[in-house]
Amino acid sequence: MKRVVTFGEIMMRLIPEGYGRFQKSSHYRSYYGGAEANSAETIAQLGIESRYVTKLPAHALGEGAVNSLRGYGVDTSYVVRGGDRLGLYFMENGTSQRPAQTIYDRAHSAIAEAKAEEFDWDEILDGADWFQFSGITPALSPEMAKATLEACQTAKKKGLVVSCDLNYRSKMWSPAQARKVMDQILPLVDVFIANDKDVLGMYDDKTWTHSEPKERALEILNWMNDRYHFKAAAMILVVEMDYGRKGTWGALLSDGKIYQSRGFLVDMVESVGAGDTFAGALIVARLKGLSGDEAVNYAAAASALKFSVPGDASIITEDDICSLMKRSRSDWIAR
Amino acid sequence: MKRVVTFGEIMMRLIPEGYGRFQKSSHYRSYYGGAEANSAETIAQLGIESRYVTKLPAHALGEGAVNSLRGYGVDTSYVVRGGDRLGLYFMENGTSQRPAQTIYDRAHSAIAEAKAEEFDWDEILDGADWFQFSGITPALSPEMAKATLEACQTAKKKGLVVSCDLNYRSKMWSPAQARKVMDQILPLVDVFIANDKDVLGMYDDKTWTHSEPKERALEILNWMNDRYHFKAAAMILVVEMDYGRKGTWGALLSDGKIYQSRGFLVDMVESVGAGDTFAGALIVARLKGLSGDEAVNYAAAASALKFSVPGDASIITEDDICSLMKRSRSDWIAR
Amino acid sequence: MKRVVTFGEIMMRLIPEGYGRFQKSSHYRSYYGGAEANSAETIAQLGIESRYVTKLPAHALGEGAVNSLRGYGVDTSYVVRGGDRLGLYFMENGTSQRPAQTIYDRAHSAIAEAKAEEFDWDEILDGADWFQFSGITPALSPEMAKATLEACQTAKKKGLVVSCDLNYRSKMWSPAQARKVMDQILPLVDVFIANDKDVLGMYDDKTWTHSEPKERALEILNWMNDRYHFKAAAMILVVEMDYGRKGTWGALLSDGKIYQSRGFLVDMVESVGAGDTFAGALIVARLKGLSGDEAVNYAAAASALKFSVPGDASIITEDDICSLMKRSRSDWIAR
Amino acid sequence: MKRVVTFGEIMMRLIPEGYGRFQKSSHYRSYYGGAEANSAETIAQLGIESRYVTKLPAHALGEGAVNSLRGYGVDTSYVVRGGDRLGLYFMENGTSQRPAQTIYDRAHSAIAEAKAEEFDWDEILDGADWFQFSGITPALSPEMAKATLEACQTAKKKGLVVSCDLNYRSKMWSPAQARKVMDQILPLVDVFIANDKDVLGMYDDKTWTHSEPKERALEILNWMNDRYHFKAAAMILVVEMDYGRKGTWGALLSDGKIYQSRGFLVDMVESVGAGDTFAGALIVARLKGLSGDEAVNYAAAASALKFSVPGDASIITEDDICSLMKRSRSDWIAR
Amino acid sequence: MKRVVTFGEIMMRLIPEGYGRFQKSSHYRSYYGGAEANSAETIAQLGIESRYVTKLPAHALGEGAVNSLRGYGVDTSYVVRGGDRLGLYFMENGTSQRPAQTIYDRAHSAIAEAKAEEFDWDEILDGADWFQFSGITPALSPEMAKATLEACQTAKKKGLVVSCDLNYRSKMWSPAQARKVMDQILPLVDVFIANDKDVLGMYDDKTWTHSEPKERALEILNWMNDRYHFKAAAMILVVEMDYGRKGTWGALLSDGKIYQSRGFLVDMVESVGAGDTFAGALIVARLKGLSGDEAVNYAAAASALKFSVPGDASIITEDDICSLMKRSRSDWIAR
Amino acid sequence: MKRVVTFGEIMMRLIPEGYGRFQKSSHYRSYYGGAEANSAETIAQLGIESRYVTKLPAHALGEGAVNSLRGYGVDTSYVVRGGDRLGLYFMENGTSQRPAQTIYDRAHSAIAEAKAEEFDWDEILDGADWFQFSGITPALSPEMAKATLEACQTAKKKGLVVSCDLNYRSKMWSPAQARKVMDQILPLVDVFIANDKDVLGMYDDKTWTHSEPKERALEILNWMNDRYHFKAAAMILVVEMDYGRKGTWGALLSDGKIYQSRGFLVDMVESVGAGDTFAGALIVARLKGLSGDEAVNYAAAASALKFSVPGDASIITEDDICSLMKRSRSDWIAR
Repeated sequence: MKRVVTFGEIMMRLIPEGYGRFQKSSHYRSYYGGAEANSAETIAQLGIESRYVTKLPAHALGEGAVNSLRGYGVDTSYVVRGGDRLGLYFMENGTSQRPAQTIYDRAHSAIAEAKAEEFDWDEILDGADWFQFSGITPALSPEMAKATLEACQTAKKKGLVVSCDLNYRSKMWSPAQARKVMDQILPLVDVFIANDKDVLGMYDDKTWTHSEPKERALEILNWMNDRYHFKAAAMILVVEMDYGRKGTWGALLSDGKIYQSRGFLVDMVESVGAGDTFAGALIVARLKGLSGDEAVNYAAAASALKFSVPGDASIITEDDICSLMKRSRSDWIAR
Repeated sequence: MKRVVTFGEIMMRLIPEGYGRFQKSSHYRSYYGGAEANSAETIAQLGIESRYVTKLPAHALGEGAVNSLRGYGVDTSYVVRGGDRLGLYFMENGTSQRPAQTIYDRAHSAIAEAKAEEFDWDEILDGADWFQFSGITPALSPEMAKATLEACQTAKKKGLVVSCDLNYRSKMWSPAQARKVMDQILPLVDVFIANDKDVLGMYDDKTWTHSEPKERALEILNWMNDRYHFKAAAMILVVEMDYGRKGTWGALLSDGKIYQSRGFLVDMVESVGAGDTFAGALIVARLKGLSGDEAVNYAAAASALKFSVPGDASIITEDDICSLMKRSRSDWIAR
Repeated sequence: MKRVVTFGEIMMRLIPEGYGRFQKSSHYRSYYGGAEANSAETIAQLGIESRYVTKLPAHALGEGAVNSLRGYGVDTSYVVRGGDRLGLYFMENGTSQRPAQTIYDRAHSAIAEAKAEEFDWDEILDGADWFQFSGITPALSPEMAKATLEACQTAKKKGLVVSCDLNYRSKMWSPAQARKVMDQILPLVDVFIANDKDVLGMYDDKTWTHSEPKERALEILNWMNDRYHFKAAAMILVVEMDYGRKGTWGALLSDGKIYQSRGFLVDMVESVGAGDTFAGALIVARLKGLSGDEAVNYAAAASALKFSVPGDASIITEDDICSLMKRSRSDWIAR
Repeated sequence: MKRVVTFGEIMMRLIPEGYGRFQKSSHYRSYYGGAEANSAETIAQLGIESRYVTKLPAHALGEGAVNSLRGYGVDTSYVVRGGDRLGLYFMENGTSQRPAQTIYDRAHSAIAEAKAEEFDWDEILDGADWFQFSGITPALSPEMAKATLEACQTAKKKGLVVSCDLNYRSKMWSPAQARKVMDQILPLVDVFIANDKDVLGMYDDKTWTHSEPKERALEILNWMNDRYHFKAAAMILVVEMDYGRKGTWGALLSDGKIYQSRGFLVDMVESVGAGDTFAGALIVARLKGLSGDEAVNYAAAASALKFSVPGDASIITEDDICSLMKRSRSDWIAR
Repeated sequence: MKRVVTFGEIMMRLIPEGYGRFQKSSHYRSYYGGAEANSAETIAQLGIESRYVTKLPAHALGEGAVNSLRGYGVDTSYVVRGGDRLGLYFMENGTSQRPAQTIYDRAHSAIAEAKAEEFDWDEILDGADWFQFSGITPALSPEMAKATLEACQTAKKKGLVVSCDLNYRSKMWSPAQARKVMDQILPLVDVFIANDKDVLGMYDDKTWTHSEPKERALEILNWMNDRYHFKAAAMILVVEMDYGRKGTWGALLSDGKIYQSRGFLVDMVESVGAGDTFAGALIVARLKGLSGDEAVNYAAAASALKFSVPGDASIITEDDICSLMKRSRSDWIAR
Repeated sequence: MKRVVTFGEIMMRLIPEGYGRFQKSSHYRSYYGGAEANSAETIAQLGIESRYVTKLPAHALGEGAVNSLRGYGVDTSYVVRGGDRLGLYFMENGTSQRPAQTIYDRAHSAIAEAKAEEFDWDEILDGADWFQFSGITPALSPEMAKATLEACQTAKKKGLVVSCDLNYRSKMWSPAQARKVMDQILPLVDVFIANDKDVLGMYDDKTWTHSEPKERALEILNWMNDRYHFKAAAMILVVEMDYGRKGTWGALLSDGKIYQSRGFLVDMVESVGAGDTFAGALIVARLKGLSGDEAVNYAAAASALKFSVPGDASIITEDDICSLMKRSRSDWIAR
């Protein structure tokens, strides 16, 4: 079977029950998640071997994160144990005109304070077909930027496909810092995945011509491909409605040709993890040998379904995806 | 007071909290329900004497089912106790593009393994005015098909009105098996209730001309009336919107004349029990002497309200129905 | 810092979990609230000193109400303790075509049976800038009507601004009784706040010309101003959609000139407290010196956000309001 | 089958989750219960026909109380509907050195404000074998004292056995008031049930000689029998340990001869309803024809089990009782 | 690393919240468990490779069971998927004098209806050091008895240690049936584990001399060793107190010499899984090379801790065990 | 009214539901607490003005902590807002032989990274009568040690009583570090509170003669008084039973004379906050002018009750304490 290795963070998320606000909540639901971990869980659940690489404290909550990953079928044998704390984030559900709120508490986590040398990429990547990370991984610390670069270099040497989900986070680093690091790493990337907000945020020194979703996505794809020469690149397409809680969701994939998925009308019951699911499902689609058109629809359907699943992990099966692909008509045309 | 006797199954439903998926849920909400039991509970709560006939295991969960029926005012004095297990079904709430999922675990239940002779219809139906069952009852087993037939025969002999809610379930029997059994039973039925999907599923050997909801319903009513000579027949009418989670809901009633209810715009917060409520409320409407037009609106309003009530049981009062009938304008015209 | 004194009731609300109905619920969520208390909590949380005046029983549930008020930063040092019971109300969430239901159990509460002389307004209002009450306060009992009148008189003497949120409750008194009492009190009021339903209910002896929301609001404002000579008056504007669970929400403010807020599209996740938040936020806006246009938008935005917060208390921050005001376009034009 | 008619109150109990205190709780569990209702539910569940007579408001929470009674198999066809409110009581679990706390809110309830004439005892008691009430029923109001007296008189006329569980409540009436009313009613009583605290509280004008549990119980039995000439009388015996949360529980029965039950070691997980269960189970034992020795053990075992069942209702089966009677040795001797 | 293969059942357990009874519960907590699965999870969590072999339906609840096993680090790559249903059991917590109640619903499960040939033991056991099963496995069906026998034969051929936890279940088969099957299997067993109740239940044709726990255990060990010639055998020792909810817990191990563990005073907060944990931990102790004395204490401490962990799975770490072994004095002497 | 100023930390505690273990929990209950904050809440609830001084992040969880403090009546007007994170601790309930487990995540909190100069003690302590802190406050950071020293110096200058609860935490600093800092601070302390474990932990360079609780406490009191010359000093006395979950709890107070409280038998349902409650209640007792004997019993009773209250905050009223003092006999003699 094919194997994907993913490298990144995993945090505990704490979310007040119902639509309760932080100021007055006393009952929380917890999940373990993180952009890269979510992708790794998607990959495992869709039937591809999935190994996750991170560092977690040696205490029982770190074990909880390992338990969560393993439960979804992810191989955790290369998770390093040690360090002081588990990264956390608190999230408050939004509804009506009130947006979801997030309080990150990820600084000083085991992975943020890990050393690059704690990860032996030659061994970790052995026998694997694909290496995936997101822009959050190198943003964690200079050491993790170094580890990400080393992982990409080793992966290329060993003949793996390398993919990156851009995930630019302005609270973690400035656009200039991000560009400096990513300009070293992205040339090693074969498959690039992003949404337009992340690209616009990180390349804030550039002026873009288009504002309509599809045309802006094409403009970005062209510009990024010129700059980094990806083998394939995918952009999420969203048209928001109703204060951002509903919308039409899909994607563009470019690999020489351009493929556009159907648009899936979604209710954003859970706002976390759709992009991560897209990345994971796109990797699965490529490893399963789907055509460009099939792949972009498969990944878009998987990620559209994620909006219905509470928590970070994408508990979505092959059956769920196929059933949605059969059921759904194109929703790009306004209802 | 008028009395209705209903015959069928009652199961325990287990549903994960919130929108959690089966793969990862650890907290369940339970309800007792089943198509026929739901109708019986509607009848009791709308003020008509309601006796329920089924078989339940003699253990505490069987007692829980009896407790639930009695709580809604249903007479359980003819519930047979014995057998091995309570039928179960697991249900996962759907949302956004993800449909609700059901895992049935009803085989080998006390009622599925009961003998026809365990039910003394002469005594059970004594003093009653109406006998109701659904297509699930004879599908449980050949013995239950026999018991249903015997019940209908006794009911006719004693002068009761006999009604049937078609509820064709393809997982329980094939269309051919169903038709063979129902062709014996339906000629004894006075009042027939169905939705178009069930009719199309069971009479899969027939070609239908119309596809628009109202015209198809009329076509079905005509064809079924020709075949079985009902005194009255009702068809649910639905126009779905938004991935099947919203829609306009109403009904047609034919008793020589055709009556169409208003359309009620509904959000499908709970997907189980609306049809069962329709059947129960239609029986109540007839026993209370409502006109054809009033009856179809009463039953349609009651069942439209059911989409707002979690669980199988239709906890809907006469006041709720009247208040909706006053409040609501016709929603058949698109908003 | 500016200080507002608010006078009224605070009850315990009990609400079944989820969309459960009273007939079958066994798990309740409790909140402490009441129209005037909700306004007082809004004021405190938006940074103005807020003192609440009421009477509560000396037992632990009365202490719970005090704890709740204090938690939001409200000064409870003038809450009288004594009497027999805490007012209660049971509320059942509505959804789809089923409206929310309320069972009030507020009679014989400590505040309803308090004596006017238990409140020493000279001391209570000392150092304050504003006195706020709602039409529920004098409706509690003739003694509380007397206390409200005395409070207004003392407030005027001491140079405070006096404001009233009309909140006419037909279950508490008849229109004629209400008019008789309020005709004594309203001439002392500087800032008047209402929605059209309350005005139409209380002044049921008058015929109104307009039915379109904005024009009716203007008609009401003119007529009320002629009758009571307010310094400023505000009317809530709502256009309902989808069986009253969605709508466009905003307000008109008249202080010589007329200001209309933007319309905020809202999902009514929680139906209690939006009007109370409007009143509280309007007082804050005036005390912070916002212009008429800014004030009506500030108060409309705050109250539009309240529909997203479960419970009576308006847990809304200055940041939430500013962020909504920036984000939102006018939604008065149909989507 | 034998039928018992019971007359009294039923309230909603609200209890904070876990060991939470009232001052800070926001999640409550609700139960419906009341001393007499609890006995009626015990009787129905142990297989004797049980009719409950009370008055409940015509709203949905009143329906909830009816639903709860019916669920346990109690006949509610003579429950009067009307009046303003449902009686309530708030209860906080105790643990360790902190005792359970109760806040009653039962004044002004439908039953407390009912008229004696609303109950047609001739019809209600028709076909019954036994009439049961507790000392709380006449304490509700002079009208309910009158209704209780009338019920006893009618019962005697019709040849029913009349029983009374003393349940003296000092918050409801003074000892002198209680004695004045009960001195009219108790001479009509055949079977009397009490614990020593209630007797000592109500007959506070008498001096008692003994303080050791069994001897005091015998002294009370003798004195009460001299005064009221009961056919049978039973006294609960308790020896408390560990701050009142553990103890040995049993009873004495006198019907000419004296029978003492075994002592059952109990953990008081739920503190409400054990006495009510004792009364109900003793009635069942008598109606089933058990001997004096069997009856007192049956009732003591049933009530000892009640300490393990959360909520007011005694969900205890014949099997549970028999299994405990077989399992348990006498625990009167200290462990 | 050493690897253990375990073969058996895994069911879903459903347990009402708190001390609620089945008759009236509506909120359930679910766990996945089964005697053999619990042992496998203990083994994995104590750091030995643990492979679990069973059959589970291919639906989402079956996936939930796999997810649960994997989460604890168990290798599920040889779990067969297919069949109709997941075995279930309902369990009600006991407290005070009320014992826990269990309703099994395990008939017709995927594993109970599996064929022996679905398990390729040659491949499954490859590279393993130990094969473990319990007496429940062959009791599931004649096919599973056959599969167990084949597994033991293959294991012996491949040089694995074979162990059996007796777990005699009288609801699954009669003593005579059990003896007939087990007499074929037990001669292949190296390490035998049991408690006295199971031995007495299954060998009901034998008369035993001793009744005091330790002496009876020794008598059983001698007799069983004579009959089956085990290399090692362990017996659980329990002295119950307080209606079986407290007690002193430990074990005897015989491997030529006799070792007795300390007695651990336990509160039985969770009654399931202690024996399974003992079996798992004893296997771990042997594979880690602990001495007889160390091994019996390690396994006794692990299983004593299990009484504190809700759910079937033994979430107990090496640290927990070591810390208890250090902390605890011998509790065999009565307090 | 008297006013106490308390200085220290406040964290969010997260605790899995029931007896769930960290490795597998998904539902958490949250509380805000910290040793000093718990004392401040005790003081406010027992009727003394209580001001709390700390630093909290300016986000909504920081506001939650403020809300919690204010709810109990604590004055938070001198809480500094700013910094990055709220301190956290995760706590797992223990039961039977499994002890409670705590994972601290308090490093880098707002208070741990605050500067001494952020607290203007001259203003903060103005008008106050007492200054309280615990040994955790100076352990947070050198800056907080400096702030504590400055606070004590200012307090002494202004004539306040200064008290310290030793609370030595070996995970925060070494004994040598602690002694170095505390040797500067303790000479400024008037009233000293500790338990023997903390003293033995911090003064690990000293050899103690006695091991029996009371004699060791007296030895410690003498030695500490010789070293630091306190005006009064109190030591907690505990005799543990049943794996530390039950015990007898009380205290010694020395102020020239020695007073010993009664011993209160306790079940340790909640293990956090008893010592903090003792400190708070002792301060209250002194400010209310209770005698030495009354004071030590008042504080011991308050803290004994804390074991029954879930969460950090001591929700204990004057009535609770008085009622326990009346009810309880001395439990120092073994039961």
